[in-house]
Amino acid sequence: MTAFLQDVYPQFNGEVADITEDYALLRLPIDNTHVRPGNTVSGPTMMALADVALYVVILSRIGPEALTVTTDFTCHFLNKPSANAALMAKATILKLGKRLVIGEVELYSEGEEESMVAHVVSTYSIPPRK
Amino acid sequence: MTAFLQDVYPQFNGEVADITEDYALLRLPIDNTHVRPGNTVSGPTMMALADVALYVVILSRIGPEALTVTTDFTCHFLNKPSANAALMAKATILKLGKRLVIGEVELYSEGEEESMVAHVVSTYSIPPRK
Amino acid sequence: MTAFLQDVYPQFNGEVADITEDYALLRLPIDNTHVRPGNTVSGPTMMALADVALYVVILSRIGPEALTVTTDFTCHFLNKPSANAALMAKATILKLGKRLVIGEVELYSEGEEESMVAHVVSTYSIPPRK
Amino acid sequence: MTAFLQDVYPQFNGEVADITEDYALLRLPIDNTHVRPGNTVSGPTMMALADVALYVVILSRIGPEALTVTTDFTCHFLNKPSANAALMAKATILKLGKRLVIGEVELYSEGEEESMVAHVVSTYSIPPRK
Repeated sequence: MTAFLQDVYPQFNGEVADITEDYALLRLPIDNTHVRPGNTVSGPTMMALADVALYVVILSRIGPEALTVTTDFTCHFLNKPSANAALMAKATILKLGKRLVIGEVELYSEGEEESMVAHVVSTYSIPPRK
Repeated sequence: MTAFLQDVYPQFNGEVADITEDYALLRLPIDNTHVRPGNTVSGPTMMALADVALYVVILSRIGPEALTVTTDFTCHFLNKPSANAALMAKATILKLGKRLVIGEVELYSEGEEESMVAHVVSTYSIPPRK
Repeated sequence: MTAFLQDVYPQFNGEVADITEDYALLRLPIDNTHVRPGNTVSGPTMMALADVALYVVILSRIGPEALTVTTDFTCHFLNKPSANAALMAKATILKLGKRLVIGEVELYSEGEEESMVAHVVSTYSIPPRK
Repeated sequence: MTAFLQDVYPQFNGEVADITEDYALLRLPIDNTHVRPGNTVSGPTMMALADVALYVVILSRIGPEALTVTTDFTCHFLNKPSANAALMAKATILKLGKRLVIGEVELYSEGEEESMVAHVVSTYSIPPRK
């Protein structure tokens, strides 16, 4: 999975911390390139991590389909993440259909799972098999 | 505006191509770091550009409030952007309230304004003035 | 179109005010059942009208497919609609794909097109043709 | 709560089935007015129930603020609800801020909690106290 991920997201500096039947958990160490004024993590950093996390949980179910594409992506920002902790993203699948997969991501700062920093719902389209 | 933007988004490599009373137009040259398999631009690249574009159009109306924060962000991906053209984001304001600003962004590949590649609606919260 | 609409949405009390190549415009007279405290129109009334308006504009393009289903629906509420004017919904198509259609709706009180009261983006899935 | 709800949503035919510290559970009996071709429940019926459910869970936390207003509402439709069972909506709060409340709703047909039919995330604005 990690090797496959490096091919598809070569700029991704995080890691797959856990995959179970129910979820994928990704971990992104935070460095200066992710930080915004106010000692917090930028919104696009959070959205990018959520996108990868959903990609991973979908792949873990349907196998490597590198061309699976995001069709919609909705993020609500809830609390400021800490700039001094890794950012975690826990992705689960709400519905796995034949053509569409809808998933949910909870983001939080490592060690503070109870305080969600952002919440994502997103749809992916599965290309027709040839 | 550009100097202010460099402070807030130091990693942003794009430019403000135009600001009018009605919209802000941003331009992001595409390089290898933005590209995904299939010779297209990654979704997070598009979302990050849209976020900056909304930030710029809001600032152009209410003045520099670096702590303005995104509260929700919804993106629909419509067509594949070209990896061989700059990505453009045209941001307009749907509502400018006292506490919340709601804006819309149309993204397209430079030179193909008629073929929108992604559409964003997003809300920003304006912090109370002290 | 109106007869077809009555079959699919028998409770719908509005009318198709206009259909062009670019948009469908629907008009819903407001009565007591739509009103909320503060002399305004309820959010679900606005969302229901937007859903019908998108359905109509999609049908006008792809022909009657009564089973076309909404897959996602995002509404931003911008300004209070008047309880004393009809509610108008102007629906346009952002992308007409083979499997998914993405559309946008602008809602406003009749006679006040410049003051949008709500904005919707939504995706519809087109069932496979048999 | 029910009496208050009747004032604010006089057309609402459902009931508050449960309120705990963590969630509000609403139940809507399904009749002909909610049904769509295919023996399923209309999307606007689902969205309207979710909107009331969020309203109830927010009120249970902050007290009766009849003017609390929805600012955004995103629904993903996952599976067809049954037209022969009541529709249930379980609303929880993701963040309770001073000015904004963000909540989530899971909808399912009564007796089939494991098979979510729709998922909602929505933001409410709390008016300034006078």
